[in-house]
Amino acid sequence: MSYTAPIKDMLFVLKELAGLDEVAGLPGFEEAGLDTAQAVLEESSKLCGEVLAPLNVEGDRNPSTWKDGVVTASPGFRQAFRQFAEGGWQGVQHPSEYEGQGLPKLIATPCIEMLNASNLSFALCPLLTDGAIEALLTAGSEEQKQRYVPKLISGEWTGTMNLTEPQAGSDLALVRTRAEPQGDGTYRVFGTKIFITWGEHDMAENIVHLVLARTPSAPEGVKGISLFIVPKFMIGEDGTLGARNDVHCVSIEHKLGIKASPTAVLQFGDHGGAVGYLIGEENRGLEYMFIMMNAARFAVGMQGVAVADRAYQKAVAYAKERVQSRPVDGSAKQAVTIVHHPDVRRMLATMRALTEGARALAYVAAAHSDIAHCHADERVRAEHQAIYEYLVPIVKGWSTELSLDVTSLGVQVHGGMGFIEETGAAQYYRDARILPIYEGTTAIQANDLVGRKTLRDGGAVAQGLLGEIDKTVEALKSHGDSSDSSFSSIATQLEAGRHALAAVVDFVVKQAKTDPNAVFAGSVPYLKLAGLVLGGWQMARAALVAQDKRAEDPSFHGAKILTARFFAEHLLPHAAALQASIVSAKGGEGWLALDIEQF
Amino acid sequence: MSYTAPIKDMLFVLKELAGLDEVAGLPGFEEAGLDTAQAVLEESSKLCGEVLAPLNVEGDRNPSTWKDGVVTASPGFRQAFRQFAEGGWQGVQHPSEYEGQGLPKLIATPCIEMLNASNLSFALCPLLTDGAIEALLTAGSEEQKQRYVPKLISGEWTGTMNLTEPQAGSDLALVRTRAEPQGDGTYRVFGTKIFITWGEHDMAENIVHLVLARTPSAPEGVKGISLFIVPKFMIGEDGTLGARNDVHCVSIEHKLGIKASPTAVLQFGDHGGAVGYLIGEENRGLEYMFIMMNAARFAVGMQGVAVADRAYQKAVAYAKERVQSRPVDGSAKQAVTIVHHPDVRRMLATMRALTEGARALAYVAAAHSDIAHCHADERVRAEHQAIYEYLVPIVKGWSTELSLDVTSLGVQVHGGMGFIEETGAAQYYRDARILPIYEGTTAIQANDLVGRKTLRDGGAVAQGLLGEIDKTVEALKSHGDSSDSSFSSIATQLEAGRHALAAVVDFVVKQAKTDPNAVFAGSVPYLKLAGLVLGGWQMARAALVAQDKRAEDPSFHGAKILTARFFAEHLLPHAAALQASIVSAKGGEGWLALDIEQF
Repeated sequence: MSYTAPIKDMLFVLKELAGLDEVAGLPGFEEAGLDTAQAVLEESSKLCGEVLAPLNVEGDRNPSTWKDGVVTASPGFRQAFRQFAEGGWQGVQHPSEYEGQGLPKLIATPCIEMLNASNLSFALCPLLTDGAIEALLTAGSEEQKQRYVPKLISGEWTGTMNLTEPQAGSDLALVRTRAEPQGDGTYRVFGTKIFITWGEHDMAENIVHLVLARTPSAPEGVKGISLFIVPKFMIGEDGTLGARNDVHCVSIEHKLGIKASPTAVLQFGDHGGAVGYLIGEENRGLEYMFIMMNAARFAVGMQGVAVADRAYQKAVAYAKERVQSRPVDGSAKQAVTIVHHPDVRRMLATMRALTEGARALAYVAAAHSDIAHCHADERVRAEHQAIYEYLVPIVKGWSTELSLDVTSLGVQVHGGMGFIEETGAAQYYRDARILPIYEGTTAIQANDLVGRKTLRDGGAVAQGLLGEIDKTVEALKSHGDSSDSSFSSIATQLEAGRHALAAVVDFVVKQAKTDPNAVFAGSVPYLKLAGLVLGGWQMARAALVAQDKRAEDPSFHGAKILTARFFAEHLLPHAAALQASIVSAKGGEGWLALDIEQF
Repeated sequence: MSYTAPIKDMLFVLKELAGLDEVAGLPGFEEAGLDTAQAVLEESSKLCGEVLAPLNVEGDRNPSTWKDGVVTASPGFRQAFRQFAEGGWQGVQHPSEYEGQGLPKLIATPCIEMLNASNLSFALCPLLTDGAIEALLTAGSEEQKQRYVPKLISGEWTGTMNLTEPQAGSDLALVRTRAEPQGDGTYRVFGTKIFITWGEHDMAENIVHLVLARTPSAPEGVKGISLFIVPKFMIGEDGTLGARNDVHCVSIEHKLGIKASPTAVLQFGDHGGAVGYLIGEENRGLEYMFIMMNAARFAVGMQGVAVADRAYQKAVAYAKERVQSRPVDGSAKQAVTIVHHPDVRRMLATMRALTEGARALAYVAAAHSDIAHCHADERVRAEHQAIYEYLVPIVKGWSTELSLDVTSLGVQVHGGMGFIEETGAAQYYRDARILPIYEGTTAIQANDLVGRKTLRDGGAVAQGLLGEIDKTVEALKSHGDSSDSSFSSIATQLEAGRHALAAVVDFVVKQAKTDPNAVFAGSVPYLKLAGLVLGGWQMARAALVAQDKRAEDPSFHGAKILTARFFAEHLLPHAAALQASIVSAKGGEGWLALDIEQF
């Protein structure tokens, strides 16, 4: 059950694909070059590999427990969280003025990947805390920032996101939790929130709940939602902890996976009202929550990459060890390790290509976010912010959907042993299943991709990316006369994928008004298509770099080219199929005519 | 957690696609017409819906338990098995001369589907018993048949298949269990078998283990394996049970799913040797076991259809009940049930189309088996046997692989609730995961499809099926001038799929000798392609029938046409992608050049 962070591939992506040098040239990131990245990644990998990875199985076998409102984390988690906190890992990407390390998101991202690969349940606590920090930094008052952020960064306290209610999941317009102003600037919060990740636990001394609720005068729907801070323990003027606030964990869920992470039902205000503090202005809560959600969505996308890589590592190790059957080509008279069998290699190559493609795309997105935050030129910032925002639903949706396929293949490689819980492959399959659901289902990501990210700018950002892909296709073609046929093959498939994506963007932009049902019926396939083509594009870019550097490290760079080729030849052909499926819905004329009663 | 057998669709497929009338015209099946089928299906659906379906969750929460070698089935299972046995359900497809009902496999198949849809864990016990009965009927002596088969059919005893050993999973050449002849016609069996489904339990008074083992003089490899009967309790001349035989269950597995079905480690011969009786001749065990395995493989394919349908039913029910968000087309100002949202309908349509396509293909295969067994003309029998054998790995591999997608979508439709175990959707996702593994992994099915089923006859059977598809394409085209554009659309996609399959069959036949690694690297994609195209073909045939009968039941037949259209437009386009991926491996030149050390 070991985990080894793929530092070599991570650094390759940071440097060669995501433009670490450019990010290190931004104001404030002068120290954040390759040496720093390497040192941070190596240090992070120690904590993850040595402390957190071994706890992963332990947490699955001994989930967090609830008794009389108190939640006890799985054995070893509390101590591990102290090590995590003391190492300063919560603060990697947060500003140094609030005790963070002030490193770019680009360097924080591989750390987040490692954390999640080693222990998805554990990593969720810092993930939610990161979201709370981002929301406070963006929308909180200076006093709120000073009061909460350093404590969250130090790991003395942790953060949560309280959105969901029994009747309000994807649809936040249905939120009913009330917040009544008390005249002294504070509010009293009443309501029930469900699915609150790490909503109650014993790993830190306080929990800062960020809660969506309605004030009495609020308009209906999403425009009447405000965001409140509700601490578990009241905080005195001097920062010391006081009485318990009126928020209580009434139960935790019995889940398919990520069992060590407690998923809480929180009851607010059963004993007079939970004291809450408004963040920013009333009725702008959803806007602030989206800041938090964008950060969290990106991070959940990284969870997909992470669990996929962990499953891949485990499958490779098993395939190199398990002896079964003679080779199909007759090259040996004895049974060989199963990694010799072509279908096992196809499965491993699929797992690897998807994981590497998703990793590259996510890291590239992180670099856009850094430039969007820190570049001196406002126009450049806006440009990169738009690209980042286009990529977030794709990173979230595509990486998490593919993590289902990759973890499923991980089970399959193990054969019958994969179905036995002690083997460990099944845990990844179970854990991954939440990823395309929480922080917005894949359909919600796809709606975002269609609505805010494609229609709002008439497909301009998408067109810009397609133009970049064209440049890569040209570069691949100029390798066409090289001795390696991989490049012409990759060029052909990437070009076909690019055309499929272009046709779909065009379809979405043109049809959304006249035939919204058809467009939204194709929204998830559009998201998957975009992930496939953009991920394949990153793999193609990687192959070009690898060709130039081949002599330096022939095995690593040769593998990168062949993995890119596999991605192009095995995965990219599905782009045309997705295109066909998307344009087929045709509103009332096509299969959407299937009546609800006919299901 | 209810289950309603889809009797209407089952009867439609039996009659309109699988040729029930033709089967009822075979010698011995004169009574097996539509009326009989309907009566049997309705009776079966009562037991399944009322008794077995409610036990499914119970078995998941309270798995079978092991203590001191004794396995106790989950609460209620023993009583339910008595009802199953007393209803005569074990004997549906077995000959009346051994107390079976003597019905065609075609009518038994929907009963098997219902049984598995209602309770996969429970259904495994009859499934294995069916396999034991088939092996005994084919290879056993008349005395063995008389002794064992009626007791197995009555449900007084159950059967098991003992193939796997720790070092011998897919590779039966590595079997080490020994059988030593005693001079009196009996043998003593020594060894360890693992993954023995229902290998020990308290639902019946005896268990008939069929065991693969080697005699002292046997050659190495698969040609030295013999098949033995090893009863749990010795059987006296008069059929009464005697002493315990020397076979003991030393543990059962802790599994991802199908938790109610005990998966046993069986120890043979720790106390002097388990008494075994040879079936047929020495060293022909694998051949006999294949009889059993072919029956079991088909049945496992049905398990895929079954769990997919159960997941679909649950998802539809939830989608019609859960209210969330306003419609994207602005047709309502209030939140609506999620079945109104295009992406939910896309998910449900995907689940439905795959399930119906897989059901139709499997039932058609069952009809070929009936004709192969009972037709008066030997040539016709051989012809249908060849088609059935071509279809078995596809039914097994494709139906079980798609059950992973369908049960995963089932979780997704439920959103966050899908991840909570109490909801029940996660159980199907967990249970289904074993299906592409046991009774031969998908890769093993694909090897069979490539080797025995395609190369051995130079692709002749496959070509025959392609010719049949052409006829359907022509029929669809002749509907092209009808007012319904579905038919031209289905024709286009089916024709494209047919060409993709033809190209791949050609590739397999031509390249297998010169480039076996490339062909076997594409074997699973070939299997999936074959399933997709043959399943899509059945849906297209269904649409043609539905068009003719549309006036009779417009809702049912209209839904069938639109589901066929969805299959064609959303799923069949992936046929071309699979074709591209298969021919891309190109042995050492392509991605297969990725060295084992590079993984």
